[in-house]
Amino acid sequence: MLYNLPMEVKLAVSKVNKYATSESGDSVEVIERPNGGISVVMADGQSSGKAAKQVSSLVVRKVISLLSEGVRDGAAARAASDYLFTERKGKVSATLNIASIDLQTATMVITRNNPLPVYIASNQDLCTFDDECNPIGIYRDTRPLITELTLEPGLTVVLFTDGLVHAGSRSGDSLDIKTILEAYLEEAEQPNPQLLADQFLSAAMQLDRGRPVDDISVVVIQVGSEASDPVRRMSVQLPLS
Amino acid sequence: MLYNLPMEVKLAVSKVNKYATSESGDSVEVIERPNGGISVVMADGQSSGKAAKQVSSLVVRKVISLLSEGVRDGAAARAASDYLFTERKGKVSATLNIASIDLQTATMVITRNNPLPVYIASNQDLCTFDDECNPIGIYRDTRPLITELTLEPGLTVVLFTDGLVHAGSRSGDSLDIKTILEAYLEEAEQPNPQLLADQFLSAAMQLDRGRPVDDISVVVIQVGSEASDPVRRMSVQLPLS
Repeated sequence: MLYNLPMEVKLAVSKVNKYATSESGDSVEVIERPNGGISVVMADGQSSGKAAKQVSSLVVRKVISLLSEGVRDGAAARAASDYLFTERKGKVSATLNIASIDLQTATMVITRNNPLPVYIASNQDLCTFDDECNPIGIYRDTRPLITELTLEPGLTVVLFTDGLVHAGSRSGDSLDIKTILEAYLEEAEQPNPQLLADQFLSAAMQLDRGRPVDDISVVVIQVGSEASDPVRRMSVQLPLS
Repeated sequence: MLYNLPMEVKLAVSKVNKYATSESGDSVEVIERPNGGISVVMADGQSSGKAAKQVSSLVVRKVISLLSEGVRDGAAARAASDYLFTERKGKVSATLNIASIDLQTATMVITRNNPLPVYIASNQDLCTFDDECNPIGIYRDTRPLITELTLEPGLTVVLFTDGLVHAGSRSGDSLDIKTILEAYLEEAEQPNPQLLADQFLSAAMQLDRGRPVDDISVVVIQVGSEASDPVRRMSVQLPLS
Protein backbone atom coordinates (compact mmCIF):
# COMPACT_ATOMS: atom_id res chain seq x y z
CA MET A 1 0.00 0.00 0.00
CA LEU A 2 1.25 3.43 -0.92
CA TYR A 3 -0.93 5.35 1.50
CA ASN A 4 -0.46 5.00 5.22
CA LEU A 5 -3.37 6.82 6.74
CA PRO A 6 -6.74 5.19 7.11
CA MET A 7 -8.99 7.02 4.66
CA GLU A 8 -12.41 6.65 3.21
CA VAL A 9 -13.57 7.54 -0.27
CA LYS A 10 -17.18 8.59 -0.75
CA LEU A 11 -18.71 9.00 -4.17
CA ALA A 12 -22.16 10.29 -5.08
CA VAL A 13 -24.05 10.65 -8.33
CA SER A 14 -27.26 12.66 -8.76
CA LYS A 15 -29.00 12.63 -12.09
CA VAL A 16 -32.20 14.02 -13.54
CA ASN A 17 -33.79 13.87 -17.00
CA LYS A 18 -34.60 16.83 -19.20
CA TYR A 19 -38.23 17.80 -18.52
CA ALA A 20 -40.78 15.57 -20.26
CA THR A 21 -38.27 13.08 -21.63
CA SER A 22 -38.31 9.55 -20.36
CA GLU A 23 -34.68 8.89 -21.12
CA SER A 24 -31.60 10.84 -20.14
CA GLY A 25 -28.90 11.39 -22.77
CA ASP A 26 -26.36 11.10 -19.97
CA SER A 27 -24.94 7.80 -18.79
CA VAL A 28 -23.05 7.30 -15.56
CA GLU A 29 -21.67 3.99 -14.31
CA VAL A 30 -19.40 3.02 -11.44
CA ILE A 31 -17.13 -0.01 -11.68
CA GLU A 32 -14.57 -1.71 -9.46
CA ARG A 33 -11.01 -1.55 -10.80
CA PRO A 34 -9.37 -4.96 -11.18
CA ASN A 35 -6.25 -3.86 -9.30
CA GLY A 36 -8.12 -2.09 -6.53
CA GLY A 37 -10.27 1.01 -6.33
CA ILE A 38 -13.23 2.25 -8.31
CA SER A 39 -13.90 4.31 -11.40
CA VAL A 40 -16.86 6.44 -12.33
CA VAL A 41 -17.50 7.01 -16.02
CA MET A 42 -19.82 9.78 -17.25
CA ALA A 43 -20.79 10.50 -20.85
CA ASP A 44 -23.24 12.92 -22.44
CA GLY A 45 -24.35 12.06 -25.96
CA GLN A 46 -25.04 14.75 -28.55
CA SER A 47 -28.70 15.97 -28.61
CA SER A 48 -31.21 14.42 -26.17
CA GLY A 49 -33.59 11.51 -25.69
CA LYS A 50 -33.18 8.02 -27.13
CA ALA A 51 -30.50 8.84 -29.72
CA ALA A 52 -28.31 10.61 -27.17
CA LYS A 53 -28.79 7.78 -24.68
CA GLN A 54 -27.62 5.24 -27.23
CA VAL A 55 -24.44 7.19 -27.83
CA SER A 56 -23.60 7.87 -24.18
CA SER A 57 -24.38 4.29 -23.25
CA LEU A 58 -22.17 2.93 -26.04
CA VAL A 59 -19.31 5.14 -24.84
CA VAL A 60 -19.69 4.28 -21.16
CA ARG A 61 -20.00 0.56 -21.88
CA LYS A 62 -16.81 0.58 -23.95
CA VAL A 63 -14.90 2.44 -21.24
CA ILE A 64 -16.04 0.31 -18.30
CA SER A 65 -15.39 -2.87 -20.22
CA LEU A 66 -11.79 -1.76 -20.92
CA LEU A 67 -11.22 -0.48 -17.36
CA SER A 68 -12.47 -3.75 -15.92
CA GLU A 69 -9.82 -5.56 -18.00
CA GLY A 70 -7.08 -3.38 -16.48
CA VAL A 71 -6.69 -0.92 -19.39
CA ARG A 72 -5.52 2.48 -18.14
CA ASP A 73 -7.97 5.37 -18.13
CA GLY A 74 -6.30 7.42 -20.87
CA ALA A 75 -6.10 4.44 -23.21
CA ALA A 76 -9.73 3.57 -22.49
CA ALA A 77 -10.83 7.13 -23.34
CA ARG A 78 -8.88 7.06 -26.61
CA ALA A 79 -10.34 3.69 -27.48
CA ALA A 80 -13.86 4.96 -26.80
CA SER A 81 -13.21 7.95 -29.06
CA ASP A 82 -11.94 5.79 -31.93
CA TYR A 83 -14.85 3.42 -31.42
CA LEU A 84 -17.50 6.16 -31.53
CA PHE A 85 -15.74 7.78 -34.51
CA THR A 86 -15.81 4.46 -36.38
CA GLU A 87 -19.36 3.47 -35.38
CA ARG A 88 -20.91 6.83 -36.23
CA LYS A 89 -18.52 7.90 -39.01
CA GLY A 90 -17.39 11.03 -37.16
CA LYS A 91 -20.89 12.50 -37.18
CA VAL A 92 -21.83 12.19 -33.52
CA SER A 93 -19.98 13.56 -30.52
CA ALA A 94 -20.09 12.79 -26.83
CA THR A 95 -18.39 14.23 -23.81
CA LEU A 96 -16.57 11.80 -21.57
CA ASN A 97 -15.21 12.06 -18.03
CA ILE A 98 -13.56 9.35 -15.99
CA ALA A 99 -12.61 9.73 -12.34
CA SER A 100 -10.75 6.85 -10.75
CA ILE A 101 -9.61 5.99 -7.27
CA ASP A 102 -6.56 3.95 -8.19
CA LEU A 103 -5.27 1.98 -5.21
CA GLN A 104 -2.20 0.79 -7.12
CA THR A 105 -0.84 4.33 -7.27
CA ALA A 106 -2.84 5.79 -4.34
CA THR A 107 -4.05 8.56 -6.61
CA MET A 108 -7.23 9.95 -8.04
CA VAL A 109 -6.97 10.05 -11.82
CA ILE A 110 -9.24 12.47 -13.69
CA THR A 111 -9.68 12.09 -17.43
CA ARG A 112 -11.49 14.74 -19.49
CA ASN A 113 -12.86 14.78 -23.00
CA ASN A 114 -15.27 17.51 -22.07
CA PRO A 115 -14.96 21.27 -22.54
CA LEU A 116 -16.56 21.73 -19.11
CA PRO A 117 -14.26 22.13 -16.14
CA VAL A 118 -13.75 19.71 -13.28
CA TYR A 119 -13.47 21.34 -9.84
CA ILE A 120 -10.76 20.03 -7.56
CA ALA A 121 -10.51 21.08 -3.93
CA SER A 122 -7.97 20.14 -1.30
CA ASN A 123 -7.69 21.34 2.28
CA GLN A 124 -5.52 24.17 0.95
CA ASP A 125 -7.26 25.44 -2.15
CA LEU A 126 -9.87 25.08 -4.85
CA CYS A 127 -8.79 24.91 -8.46
CA THR A 128 -10.40 24.39 -11.81
CA PHE A 129 -9.17 21.76 -14.24
CA ASP A 130 -10.30 23.49 -17.40
CA ASP A 131 -7.57 23.31 -20.03
CA GLU A 132 -9.07 23.14 -23.48
CA CYS A 133 -10.01 19.70 -24.77
CA ASN A 134 -12.39 18.10 -27.24
CA PRO A 135 -15.37 15.80 -26.91
CA ILE A 136 -14.88 12.39 -28.52
CA GLY A 137 -16.27 10.96 -31.75
CA ILE A 138 -15.72 13.80 -34.22
CA TYR A 139 -12.00 13.72 -34.95
CA ARG A 140 -9.44 10.99 -35.34
CA ASP A 141 -6.80 10.95 -32.62
CA THR A 142 -8.80 12.79 -30.01
CA ARG A 143 -6.80 12.65 -26.80
CA PRO A 144 -8.07 13.21 -23.30
CA LEU A 145 -6.53 15.52 -20.73
CA ILE A 146 -5.48 13.71 -17.59
CA THR A 147 -4.58 14.90 -14.14
CA GLU A 148 -3.43 12.73 -11.27
CA LEU A 149 -3.85 13.75 -7.64
CA THR A 150 -2.48 12.16 -4.50
CA LEU A 151 -5.26 10.60 -2.42
CA GLU A 152 -5.44 12.55 0.80
CA PRO A 153 -8.11 13.56 3.26
CA GLY A 154 -9.97 16.65 2.11
CA LEU A 155 -9.60 15.98 -1.60
CA THR A 156 -12.93 16.79 -3.26
CA VAL A 157 -13.73 16.54 -6.95
CA VAL A 158 -16.87 17.69 -8.78
CA LEU A 159 -17.75 16.74 -12.35
CA PHE A 160 -20.95 17.37 -14.26
CA THR A 161 -22.60 17.36 -17.66
CA ASP A 162 -23.61 20.55 -19.44
CA GLY A 163 -27.18 20.42 -18.15
CA LEU A 164 -25.87 21.91 -14.91
CA VAL A 165 -24.37 24.82 -16.82
CA HIS A 166 -27.47 25.32 -19.01
CA ALA A 167 -29.81 25.48 -16.03
CA GLY A 168 -31.59 28.82 -15.96
CA SER A 169 -30.75 29.62 -19.59
CA ARG A 170 -34.45 30.10 -20.42
CA SER A 171 -34.58 33.06 -18.06
CA GLY A 172 -31.00 34.24 -18.61
CA ASP A 173 -29.86 32.96 -15.21
CA SER A 174 -27.07 30.56 -14.48
CA LEU A 175 -25.75 28.58 -11.56
CA ASP A 176 -22.70 29.76 -9.65
CA ILE A 177 -21.19 26.31 -9.25
CA LYS A 178 -18.03 27.52 -7.56
CA THR A 179 -19.91 29.43 -4.86
CA ILE A 180 -22.09 26.43 -4.01
CA LEU A 181 -18.98 24.28 -3.76
CA GLU A 182 -17.16 26.81 -1.58
CA ALA A 183 -20.14 27.12 0.78
CA TYR A 184 -20.32 23.33 1.11
CA LEU A 185 -16.59 23.02 1.82
CA GLU A 186 -16.83 25.67 4.50
CA GLU A 187 -19.90 24.25 6.21
CA ALA A 188 -19.71 20.48 5.88
CA GLU A 189 -18.21 18.89 8.95
CA GLN A 190 -18.30 15.36 7.61
CA PRO A 191 -17.76 14.42 3.95
CA ASN A 192 -21.25 14.12 2.49
CA PRO A 193 -20.88 14.15 -1.29
CA GLN A 194 -24.51 13.12 -1.81
CA LEU A 195 -25.61 16.28 -0.04
CA LEU A 196 -23.45 18.42 -2.32
CA ALA A 197 -24.56 16.63 -5.51
CA ASP A 198 -28.18 17.11 -4.42
CA GLN A 199 -27.56 20.79 -3.65
CA PHE A 200 -26.27 21.35 -7.19
CA LEU A 201 -29.22 19.53 -8.68
CA SER A 202 -31.87 21.26 -6.63
CA ALA A 203 -30.36 24.69 -7.31
CA ALA A 204 -30.36 23.86 -11.04
CA MET A 205 -33.95 22.63 -10.95
CA GLN A 206 -35.03 25.74 -9.09
CA LEU A 207 -33.55 27.94 -11.86
CA ASP A 208 -35.47 25.84 -14.38
CA ARG A 209 -38.65 26.00 -12.27
CA GLY A 210 -38.68 22.23 -11.82
CA ARG A 211 -38.50 21.59 -15.58
CA PRO A 212 -34.85 20.97 -16.43
CA VAL A 213 -33.94 22.28 -19.92
CA ASP A 214 -31.41 19.49 -20.32
CA ASP A 215 -30.34 16.20 -18.73
CA ILE A 216 -28.19 16.91 -15.68
CA SER A 217 -25.67 14.61 -14.04
CA VAL A 218 -23.41 15.56 -11.15
CA VAL A 219 -20.66 13.41 -9.64
CA VAL A 220 -18.95 14.31 -6.38
CA ILE A 221 -16.05 12.38 -4.88
CA GLN A 222 -14.65 13.20 -1.50
CA VAL A 223 -11.85 11.64 0.55
CA GLY A 224 -12.40 11.56 4.29
CA SER A 225 -9.80 11.24 7.00
CA GLU A 226 -10.93 7.98 8.47
CA ALA A 227 -13.16 5.07 7.75
CA SER A 228 -16.05 4.63 10.17
CA ASP A 229 -15.93 0.84 9.66
CA PRO A 230 -14.40 -1.68 7.20
CA VAL A 231 -17.68 -2.04 5.26
CA ARG A 232 -17.96 -1.12 1.59
CA ARG A 233 -21.34 0.24 0.67
CA MET A 234 -23.16 1.06 -2.50
CA SER A 235 -26.70 2.34 -2.81
CA VAL A 236 -28.99 3.26 -5.65
CA GLN A 237 -32.26 5.16 -5.67
CA LEU A 238 -34.31 4.85 -8.84
CA PRO A 239 -37.63 6.73 -9.10
CA LEU A 240 -40.18 5.18 -11.46
CA SER A 241 -42.88 7.55 -12.58
CA MET B 1 -45.10 1.95 -19.23
CA LEU B 2 -46.60 -1.13 -17.67
CA TYR B 3 -46.82 0.20 -14.15
CA ASN B 4 -49.13 3.04 -13.31
CA LEU B 5 -48.27 3.93 -9.77
CA PRO B 6 -45.37 6.19 -8.99
CA MET B 7 -42.82 3.95 -7.28
CA GLU B 8 -39.24 4.12 -6.20
CA VAL B 9 -36.68 1.34 -6.18
CA LYS B 10 -33.91 1.44 -3.60
CA LEU B 11 -30.98 -0.90 -3.71
CA ALA B 12 -28.18 -1.31 -1.17
CA VAL B 13 -25.03 -3.39 -1.07
CA SER B 14 -22.89 -3.92 2.04
CA LYS B 15 -19.70 -5.87 1.75
CA VAL B 16 -16.83 -6.83 4.02
CA ASN B 17 -13.64 -8.84 3.49
CA LYS B 18 -12.68 -11.99 5.35
CA TYR B 19 -10.52 -10.97 8.31
CA ALA B 20 -6.91 -10.16 7.40
CA THR B 21 -7.36 -10.47 3.67
CA SER B 22 -6.97 -7.40 1.52
CA GLU B 23 -9.18 -8.69 -1.25
CA SER B 24 -12.71 -10.04 -1.14
CA GLY B 25 -13.51 -13.13 -3.18
CA ASP B 26 -16.96 -11.65 -3.75
CA SER B 27 -17.71 -9.24 -6.57
CA VAL B 28 -20.83 -7.10 -6.80
CA GLU B 29 -21.58 -4.62 -9.57
CA VAL B 30 -24.64 -2.58 -10.48
CA ILE B 31 -25.36 -1.64 -14.08
CA GLU B 32 -28.05 0.25 -15.95
CA ARG B 33 -30.13 -1.91 -18.30
CA PRO B 34 -30.17 -0.67 -21.90
CA ASN B 35 -33.97 -0.86 -22.09
CA GLY B 36 -34.59 0.72 -18.70
CA GLY B 37 -33.96 -0.32 -15.14
CA ILE B 38 -30.94 -1.65 -13.29
CA SER B 39 -29.32 -4.97 -12.53
CA VAL B 40 -27.16 -6.03 -9.64
CA VAL B 41 -24.80 -8.95 -10.24
CA MET B 42 -23.14 -10.80 -7.34
CA ALA B 43 -20.62 -13.63 -7.60
CA ASP B 44 -18.57 -15.52 -5.03
CA GLY B 45 -15.48 -17.29 -6.36
CA GLN B 46 -14.33 -20.62 -4.94
CA SER B 47 -11.80 -20.27 -2.04
CA SER B 48 -10.75 -16.79 -0.91
CA GLY B 49 -8.28 -13.99 -1.60
CA LYS B 50 -6.77 -13.12 -4.96
CA ALA B 51 -7.67 -16.34 -6.78
CA ALA B 52 -11.32 -16.14 -5.73
CA LYS B 53 -11.47 -12.47 -6.64
CA GLN B 54 -10.21 -13.22 -10.14
CA VAL B 55 -12.95 -15.79 -10.65
CA SER B 56 -15.81 -13.71 -9.26
CA SER B 57 -14.64 -10.66 -11.15
CA LEU B 58 -14.41 -12.61 -14.42
CA VAL B 59 -17.96 -13.89 -13.91
CA VAL B 60 -19.46 -10.51 -12.98
CA ARG B 61 -17.68 -8.73 -15.86
CA LYS B 62 -19.02 -11.26 -18.36
CA VAL B 63 -22.56 -10.92 -17.03
CA ILE B 64 -22.67 -7.11 -16.90
CA SER B 65 -21.15 -6.85 -20.34
CA LEU B 66 -23.89 -9.12 -21.75
CA LEU B 67 -26.69 -7.39 -19.80
CA SER B 68 -25.53 -4.00 -21.03
CA GLU B 69 -25.89 -5.29 -24.59
CA GLY B 70 -29.51 -6.26 -23.92
CA VAL B 71 -28.96 -10.00 -23.37
CA ARG B 72 -31.58 -11.45 -21.03
CA ASP B 73 -30.56 -12.40 -17.49
CA GLY B 74 -30.97 -16.16 -17.91
CA ALA B 75 -28.93 -16.22 -21.10
CA ALA B 76 -26.24 -14.07 -19.50
CA ALA B 77 -25.99 -16.48 -16.55
CA ARG B 78 -25.67 -19.47 -18.87
CA ALA B 79 -23.04 -17.68 -20.92
CA ALA B 80 -21.07 -16.88 -17.77
CA SER B 81 -21.23 -20.53 -16.74
CA ASP B 82 -19.98 -21.77 -20.11
CA TYR B 83 -17.29 -19.12 -20.09
CA LEU B 84 -15.99 -20.04 -16.62
CA PHE B 85 -16.19 -23.75 -17.48
CA THR B 86 -14.13 -23.15 -20.61
CA GLU B 87 -11.62 -20.75 -19.03
CA ARG B 88 -10.95 -22.90 -15.98
CA LYS B 89 -11.61 -26.34 -17.54
CA GLY B 90 -14.43 -27.15 -15.12
CA LYS B 91 -12.13 -26.98 -12.10
CA VAL B 92 -13.34 -23.78 -10.47
CA SER B 93 -16.85 -22.91 -9.35
CA ALA B 94 -18.55 -19.67 -8.51
CA THR B 95 -21.98 -18.77 -7.25
CA LEU B 96 -23.90 -16.20 -9.23
CA ASN B 97 -26.98 -14.11 -8.47
CA ILE B 98 -28.59 -11.49 -10.66
CA ALA B 99 -31.45 -9.26 -9.54
CA SER B 100 -32.90 -6.93 -12.13
CA ILE B 101 -35.45 -4.17 -12.13
CA ASP B 102 -36.70 -4.56 -15.67
CA LEU B 103 -38.76 -1.56 -16.75
CA GLN B 104 -39.73 -3.21 -20.04
CA THR B 105 -41.76 -5.81 -18.19
CA ALA B 106 -42.28 -3.89 -14.92
CA THR B 107 -40.91 -6.86 -13.02
CA MET B 108 -38.07 -7.80 -10.75
CA VAL B 109 -36.21 -10.77 -12.22
CA ILE B 110 -34.16 -12.92 -9.86
CA THR B 111 -31.63 -15.35 -11.28
CA ARG B 112 -29.87 -17.91 -9.06
CA ASN B 113 -26.90 -20.15 -9.58
CA ASN B 114 -26.36 -20.35 -5.86
CA PRO B 115 -27.48 -23.03 -3.40
CA LEU B 116 -28.26 -20.25 -0.89
CA PRO B 117 -31.81 -18.96 -0.77
CA VAL B 118 -33.05 -15.54 -1.80
CA TYR B 119 -35.65 -14.02 0.53
CA ILE B 120 -38.63 -12.36 -1.09
CA ALA B 121 -41.14 -10.34 0.89
CA SER B 122 -44.28 -8.58 -0.24
CA ASN B 123 -46.84 -6.70 1.82
CA GLN B 124 -48.66 -10.03 2.24
CA ASP B 125 -45.97 -12.59 3.00
CA LEU B 126 -42.34 -13.60 3.20
CA CYS B 127 -41.12 -16.50 1.12
CA THR B 128 -37.87 -18.23 0.40
CA PHE B 129 -36.71 -18.85 -3.16
CA ASP B 130 -34.59 -21.90 -2.41
CA ASP B 131 -35.21 -24.59 -5.03
CA GLU B 132 -32.11 -26.62 -5.61
CA CYS B 133 -29.62 -25.24 -8.12
CA ASN B 134 -25.91 -25.44 -8.93
CA PRO B 135 -23.10 -22.92 -8.89
CA ILE B 136 -21.56 -22.25 -12.28
CA GLY B 137 -18.27 -23.40 -13.79
CA ILE B 138 -18.19 -27.09 -12.89
CA TYR B 139 -20.64 -28.72 -15.28
CA ARG B 140 -21.60 -28.16 -18.87
CA ASP B 141 -25.15 -26.91 -19.34
CA THR B 142 -25.60 -25.43 -15.90
CA ARG B 143 -28.89 -23.58 -15.91
CA PRO B 144 -30.00 -20.90 -13.50
CA LEU B 145 -33.30 -20.81 -11.66
CA ILE B 146 -35.29 -17.70 -12.43
CA THR B 147 -38.26 -16.10 -10.77
CA GLU B 148 -40.08 -13.02 -11.96
CA LEU B 149 -42.07 -10.78 -9.63
CA THR B 150 -44.37 -7.88 -10.41
CA LEU B 151 -42.90 -4.58 -9.28
CA GLU B 152 -45.12 -3.28 -6.52
CA PRO B 153 -44.69 -1.23 -3.39
CA GLY B 154 -43.55 -3.36 -0.49
CA LEU B 155 -41.58 -5.86 -2.56
CA THR B 156 -38.33 -6.57 -0.73
CA VAL B 157 -35.60 -8.94 -1.84
CA VAL B 158 -32.50 -10.05 0.07
CA LEU B 159 -29.55 -11.89 -1.47
CA PHE B 160 -26.18 -12.73 0.06
CA THR B 161 -23.03 -14.76 -0.30
CA ASP B 162 -22.21 -17.68 1.99
CA GLY B 163 -20.12 -15.54 4.33
CA LEU B 164 -23.38 -14.43 5.91
CA VAL B 165 -24.36 -18.03 6.55
CA HIS B 166 -20.90 -19.03 7.83
CA ALA B 167 -20.78 -16.18 10.34
CA GLY B 168 -20.42 -17.59 13.84
CA SER B 169 -19.30 -21.01 12.62
CA ARG B 170 -16.10 -20.82 14.72
CA SER B 171 -18.19 -20.77 17.85
CA GLY B 172 -21.04 -22.95 16.60
CA ASP B 173 -23.41 -19.99 16.25
CA SER B 174 -25.28 -18.85 13.20
CA LEU B 175 -27.33 -15.92 12.08
CA ASP B 176 -31.12 -16.08 11.99
CA ILE B 177 -31.47 -14.20 8.72
CA LYS B 178 -35.22 -14.61 8.51
CA THR B 179 -35.83 -13.16 11.97
CA ILE B 180 -33.68 -10.10 11.25
CA LEU B 181 -35.60 -9.56 8.02
CA GLU B 182 -38.98 -9.98 9.73
CA ALA B 183 -38.06 -7.51 12.45
CA TYR B 184 -36.97 -4.96 9.85
CA LEU B 185 -40.16 -5.38 7.81
CA GLU B 186 -42.24 -4.87 10.92
CA GLU B 187 -40.37 -1.82 12.17
CA ALA B 188 -39.20 0.12 9.13
CA GLU B 189 -41.60 2.90 8.25
CA GLN B 190 -39.71 4.03 5.17
CA PRO B 191 -37.83 1.68 2.84
CA ASN B 192 -34.23 1.81 3.99
CA PRO B 193 -32.43 -1.15 2.42
CA GLN B 194 -29.00 0.17 3.45
CA LEU B 195 -30.08 -0.05 7.07
CA LEU B 196 -31.14 -3.68 6.63
CA ALA B 197 -27.98 -4.65 4.73
CA ASP B 198 -25.91 -3.06 7.49
CA GLN B 199 -27.92 -4.84 10.18
CA PHE B 200 -27.15 -8.20 8.58
CA LEU B 201 -23.47 -7.36 8.29
CA SER B 202 -23.07 -6.05 11.80
CA ALA B 203 -24.91 -9.04 13.28
CA ALA B 204 -22.60 -11.34 11.29
CA MET B 205 -19.49 -9.47 12.37
CA GLN B 206 -20.60 -9.60 15.97
CA LEU B 207 -20.89 -13.39 15.77
CA ASP B 208 -17.37 -13.46 14.32
CA ARG B 209 -16.11 -11.02 16.99
CA GLY B 210 -15.22 -8.43 14.36
CA ARG B 211 -13.09 -10.92 12.39
CA PRO B 212 -15.26 -12.30 9.58
CA VAL B 213 -14.43 -15.95 8.79
CA ASP B 214 -15.35 -15.36 5.15
CA ASP B 215 -16.06 -12.55 2.69
CA ILE B 216 -19.63 -11.34 3.18
CA SER B 217 -21.82 -9.50 0.68
CA VAL B 218 -25.45 -8.58 1.21
CA VAL B 219 -27.78 -7.02 -1.36
CA VAL B 220 -31.18 -5.62 -0.41
CA ILE B 221 -33.67 -4.22 -2.91
CA GLN B 222 -36.89 -2.60 -1.82
CA VAL B 223 -39.71 -1.00 -3.77
CA GLY B 224 -41.33 2.02 -2.14
CA SER B 225 -44.75 3.45 -2.82
CA GLU B 226 -43.70 6.82 -4.07
CA ALA B 227 -40.68 8.68 -5.31
CA SER B 228 -39.65 11.62 -3.15
CA ASP B 229 -38.31 13.42 -6.23
CA PRO B 230 -37.38 12.63 -9.86
CA VAL B 231 -33.66 12.37 -9.04
CA ARG B 232 -31.69 9.18 -9.55
CA ARG B 233 -28.95 8.70 -7.02
CA MET B 234 -26.04 6.38 -6.57
CA SER B 235 -23.52 6.47 -3.78
CA VAL B 236 -20.43 4.48 -2.89
CA GLN B 237 -18.46 4.32 0.33
CA LEU B 238 -15.02 2.75 0.07
CA PRO B 239 -12.87 2.45 3.21
CA LEU B 240 -9.10 2.38 2.58
CA SER B 241 -7.08 0.94 5.45
